Amino acid sequence: MEKEKPRGPLYYADYIQLDRLLGCQQMQSALHGRPAHDEMLFIIVHQTYELWFKQILWELDAVLATFRGSRVPEEDVGEAVLHCGRIVEIQRVLIQQVDVLETMTPLDFLDFRDDLIPASGIQSVQFRLIENKLGMRRGDRLQLHAAPYTSRLSDEDAARVEAAEKEPSLFDLIEGWLERTPFLNFGDFDFWREYRRAVDAMLAADRASILSNPTLTEEEKATQLAGVEATARRFADVFEPGAGQPVAGPGRHFSRRALQAALLINLYRDEPILHLPFRLLALLADIERNFTTWRQRHAQMAMRMIGSRIGTGGTSGHEYLDRAAERHKVFADLSALSSFFIPRSALPKLPPDVRSRMGFKFQTPR
Amino acid sequence: MEKEKPRGPLYYADYIQLDRLLGCQQMQSALHGRPAHDEMLFIIVHQTYELWFKQILWELDAVLATFRGSRVPEEDVGEAVLHCGRIVEIQRVLIQQVDVLETMTPLDFLDFRDDLIPASGIQSVQFRLIENKLGMRRGDRLQLHAAPYTSRLSDEDAARVEAAEKEPSLFDLIEGWLERTPFLNFGDFDFWREYRRAVDAMLAADRASILSNPTLTEEEKATQLAGVEATARRFADVFEPGAGQPVAGPGRHFSRRALQAALLINLYRDEPILHLPFRLLALLADIERNFTTWRQRHAQMAMRMIGSRIGTGGTSGHEYLDRAAERHKVFADLSALSSFFIPRSALPKLPPDVRSRMGFKFQTPR
Amino acid sequence: MEKEKPRGPLYYADYIQLDRLLGCQQMQSALHGRPAHDEMLFIIVHQTYELWFKQILWELDAVLATFRGSRVPEEDVGEAVLHCGRIVEIQRVLIQQVDVLETMTPLDFLDFRDDLIPASGIQSVQFRLIENKLGMRRGDRLQLHAAPYTSRLSDEDAARVEAAEKEPSLFDLIEGWLERTPFLNFGDFDFWREYRRAVDAMLAADRASILSNPTLTEEEKATQLAGVEATARRFADVFEPGAGQPVAGPGRHFSRRALQAALLINLYRDEPILHLPFRLLALLADIERNFTTWRQRHAQMAMRMIGSRIGTGGTSGHEYLDRAAERHKVFADLSALSSFFIPRSALPKLPPDVRSRMGFKFQTPR
Amino acid sequence: MEKEKPRGPLYYADYIQLDRLLGCQQMQSALHGRPAHDEMLFIIVHQTYELWFKQILWELDAVLATFRGSRVPEEDVGEAVLHCGRIVEIQRVLIQQVDVLETMTPLDFLDFRDDLIPASGIQSVQFRLIENKLGMRRGDRLQLHAAPYTSRLSDEDAARVEAAEKEPSLFDLIEGWLERTPFLNFGDFDFWREYRRAVDAMLAADRASILSNPTLTEEEKATQLAGVEATARRFADVFEPGAGQPVAGPGRHFSRRALQAALLINLYRDEPILHLPFRLLALLADIERNFTTWRQRHAQMAMRMIGSRIGTGGTSGHEYLDRAAERHKVFADLSALSSFFIPRSALPKLPPDVRSRMGFKFQTPR
Repeated sequence: MEKEKPRGPLYYADYIQLDRLLGCQQMQSALHGRPAHDEMLFIIVHQTYELWFKQILWELDAVLATFRGSRVPEEDVGEAVLHCGRIVEIQRVLIQQVDVLETMTPLDFLDFRDDLIPASGIQSVQFRLIENKLGMRRGDRLQLHAAPYTSRLSDEDAARVEAAEKEPSLFDLIEGWLERTPFLNFGDFDFWREYRRAVDAMLAADRASILSNPTLTEEEKATQLAGVEATARRFADVFEPGAGQPVAGPGRHFSRRALQAALLINLYRDEPILHLPFRLLALLADIERNFTTWRQRHAQMAMRMIGSRIGTGGTSGHEYLDRAAERHKVFADLSALSSFFIPRSALPKLPPDVRSRMGFKFQTPR
Repeated sequence: MEKEKPRGPLYYADYIQLDRLLGCQQMQSALHGRPAHDEMLFIIVHQTYELWFKQILWELDAVLATFRGSRVPEEDVGEAVLHCGRIVEIQRVLIQQVDVLETMTPLDFLDFRDDLIPASGIQSVQFRLIENKLGMRRGDRLQLHAAPYTSRLSDEDAARVEAAEKEPSLFDLIEGWLERTPFLNFGDFDFWREYRRAVDAMLAADRASILSNPTLTEEEKATQLAGVEATARRFADVFEPGAGQPVAGPGRHFSRRALQAALLINLYRDEPILHLPFRLLALLADIERNFTTWRQRHAQMAMRMIGSRIGTGGTSGHEYLDRAAERHKVFADLSALSSFFIPRSALPKLPPDVRSRMGFKFQTPR
Repeated sequence: MEKEKPRGPLYYADYIQLDRLLGCQQMQSALHGRPAHDEMLFIIVHQTYELWFKQILWELDAVLATFRGSRVPEEDVGEAVLHCGRIVEIQRVLIQQVDVLETMTPLDFLDFRDDLIPASGIQSVQFRLIENKLGMRRGDRLQLHAAPYTSRLSDEDAARVEAAEKEPSLFDLIEGWLERTPFLNFGDFDFWREYRRAVDAMLAADRASILSNPTLTEEEKATQLAGVEATARRFADVFEPGAGQPVAGPGRHFSRRALQAALLINLYRDEPILHLPFRLLALLADIERNFTTWRQRHAQMAMRMIGSRIGTGGTSGHEYLDRAAERHKVFADLSALSSFFIPRSALPKLPPDVRSRMGFKFQTPR
Repeated sequence: MEKEKPRGPLYYADYIQLDRLLGCQQMQSALHGRPAHDEMLFIIVHQTYELWFKQILWELDAVLATFRGSRVPEEDVGEAVLHCGRIVEIQRVLIQQVDVLETMTPLDFLDFRDDLIPASGIQSVQFRLIENKLGMRRGDRLQLHAAPYTSRLSDEDAARVEAAEKEPSLFDLIEGWLERTPFLNFGDFDFWREYRRAVDAMLAADRASILSNPTLTEEEKATQLAGVEATARRFADVFEPGAGQPVAGPGRHFSRRALQAALLINLYRDEPILHLPFRLLALLADIERNFTTWRQRHAQMAMRMIGSRIGTGGTSGHEYLDRAAERHKVFADLSALSSFFIPRSALPKLPPDVRSRMGFKFQTPR
């Protein structure tokens, strides 16, 4: 860091260190004596990506700091919502930027592509840090040729991402915070017994409606009944400690207690104390979805740019990105939470004293 | 409304009344025997606009219903925030659609333009209803050739927009709700005296820093001091009943008490009971800004499409839309609210008992 | 169609048939006596989709008409480019609209979801028509439970999409047009012999650079050499009638001659007569990519809305949409064309008389 | 520039100089001992803007190089179209980025705003260079307090923008290129006499239709006739050297001959030799429009951020940006070109030999 020295009035170019910033674009094709016009775009796109990654990490670190405490004051949840909302807006820009990169034609890319080998965006340490801080763990990652994802990083960079893997991630912290939700049990009122009763009634009605449907063949009835039983099993897994894992599929999964809390927050989001937590969980799902979209857009672009050609690394960029988009999930449970919803009309009513405890101290409405 | 009749399984095309929907595109150029390819686009763009306007009115009516009561339960503010958030997303689509309309070249437009005279998007009743329900009043409107804005509407349509003018608008209801904010005075704690003290200190520091700046000429000092005094006068208008109107400029303006409440909500948004009101006010400003952007994009498009040609109505579409974008404001106070902010470090601290009353009943943090 | 009657001045609401258009929203939940606020959004989103589909078909039909002739005048290619460019802009709106639909929470969807069964967006005839007119054929489609895709359509709708399957599609017409490209052979100048020579030189250099690389293990060398040989085989398939199919994977594939023409157009796009064909092929790939993105966004949304719940039809919407996004391709060859590019510096130079024939008659540059 | 040294395999972080890039964010608030979270966003947003400005200049310089020659080969126009198309996509990102900046609330901005005075985005040299290279000239600029726009720049920066002012701008080069269009006169065929005849017929029909309209009052007839005469005068200015300036209003204006060429290119865009010039002119208008939108979005944001507060410079950012959006135009003639269009059905047919000269040498259509 520079030492602070007495200075005259602040000048825009000095403030944002423009000379240094605009001195970071060194085209390899120019170094090799045959400058390729479009390499500048390639550099600038990656640099703007990295600047935005820095900003995402900045916001993410602020959210992590909020949830790292053993107790999270309710008044801090609003700020966390603002930070996550900003990440979502940044991601919209990241996705929009793919359209700019796509103005480079494959033929123009070939003019300098070989000069870059083996450098690759896959080596972006900041992006790996984002993934790790969100909660991605080594075992969840798609592996390229049996080599760990750190194998293409410098030692120093590998150390940084490994350190981040060991810290409590946003996934861990949110899981803990959800588990501490005080509204999961309320003396006499056993929410889950009530909820289970409503689920059972819903499933019974589904079965009856299938059986009494005159337009279905016996075979169709059997298929549809099997679907109802599958749903019943998944619900059972949410309720019972003895049952299986509530959610399967790629990505990490919340503990049963955390999942129940997330469910409660979504089902009763109108209660004042649950509204911001509801917003926060929705934003975490948005963030995950946007990274998926961004990877899918990049997969399409990789196909367009280098086709199905097998790279020197033995895989095609398209294939890797497409499979990573499918596999690299952290908050999969939040995206699929609606699997366990029941219609609002069938929801157990919260007893008045429970609802009252979820409200504001100041009671006179305006 | 159609009568409900016994029916078989619901079919997608019947559900959304596809036959009827896709039978509404009658090209005037075809009726005149020289079908113009691009007229279809012109019709479809306007029809999708109108469908979205219907949806915006649907959301707006829900928000109006919430705030129409003499007391608004805090748990309803969250839903209002969701409705307004949806309007903002719809507006993003409306703005994006301008890009589609711009794929029509002026030459293609000329192929059917004369067939449409004097029909004009300016006759969209739903858009006028949106404006009126938000709170635009007759006197705030840009007037075309001394004729009221209803002069180009059918009698029936004119009656509808006039009826909407007479109902309490969102502006009126929000103003009332803000005025009822219970936190404007708290027994011993006189927030506004404290705030004024902080403002005065800030202005005094500004004056001192100008006077002691060795790099400014006497003339520059005078100019800058005049700026400080202008700021001081505007602040005075917020505080004192005797002073002038706090905010000037086009658009409607809140009462002093409502303005003070909006200010308080923004300055102390982290207090749980203020966070959703803060989000709501921000979204109202977003909605206004998006309509401004949409009008500006249409003004640009009108210029491109028909140039500066003077229409049969005696005005150019470009000019009307550009001036309306500037003038047709309702929530101008919310967009300019920061005029009355002071840095957070200078904000009066709320006394503990005041803060506590702004919190949740449930006190154990998780 | 309505009969034309003498009329007064055209009124906006009459022109776009506003009354009819705004009378097409009949909420099933209202018919069942428990109106659900968000069903209106659900209807409007699908109706705007269908209006845009109508417009896409309108543009597509114009392009089909251009290419249906046995000879396509060069001056018509510019208009086809404008039509395709418009489709791309419409798709940007379709993708943006997903953000609006996502403002509906799963809980709100559950309020009316059961009322819609078994209606489904999968029954959109216009979307199937778009697919068929682009060139999708029955065998390329993902099949749901061994039932043809027409099984969920009404008889009349099934007949329409089947008729479209039998007509020459855009894929067929573009393939024919490419095959007729006059620049594939030029008397003495055998472009493909020259191109093949350049490819062979490139592959030989690749092999040599692998073998002489001191940092690679023998195993890594073997892997990378295998990659070069795979590339060599794919190139051979482009050149030789006896070799295999140049491109594999889901989607339809061009004849060898059409593929060669597409390659030539891309490699020499700066020659005036090839520039608009280059733009056109790029736009066809854009259109395909945008439908893929749109399906992927819908797959994400389906997951969010109903989770992994198995539908009454026995499949999850998420899964179907995700697999269709991967599989439903028509112009896959255009998206992967760069597989067969070589760097511009290695491209055979066109002889002057060949270049001259690709230019304008008017020779004095301005 | 760094000296090239022997190196190992290229690493992503070294390629894009990541350490240097991510070391350019020095928050003033941190230097002052009270770090403000949102200042990082403020810096990153401005840095990404500047990186994109560098890219825009890179593309612009390539286009300038193409048109700087005294003769522009037709095969270079396609590349210029690609460069301009890329600028348009970059601008979409610039506009999208405003949404990110707007996630900063005014209160958060106040935490560090005073630390930045008097630095301002108005001092962006790259943006001034873009304006100057496009063709903005000193006299076209909005002036702040009678001080030249260079007064807030360092001497070195002022020298750079002044140098750019003296070079031929894109406006100048395009004007020259348009004036050299060879199709403005063709031996016997006097296009402009034909066009004028068509315009006169159109105006005569307009007058007749007004006079014979039974629904108009005498006063309305007079108003509408005056509109026709105004249109007639503007058209006369396009045709006659003796008449006035064809286009008025802010921005620079083409010579009559260049304007005529632009008109011809638009009216007969389907002729092969005119299609790419038509695309190019449309993109120049797009670029101008996007900068206008970007300025308008910034004006809205400035209002939201600092309100109507008068800055130390004596003006409000909102006001400056809004007026600059209106005034800072270069290609105003292209945006308003449709003022001089007539319906296609009334366009003079080009004689066959003229059309043939506008076509390709290769005549057999495919």
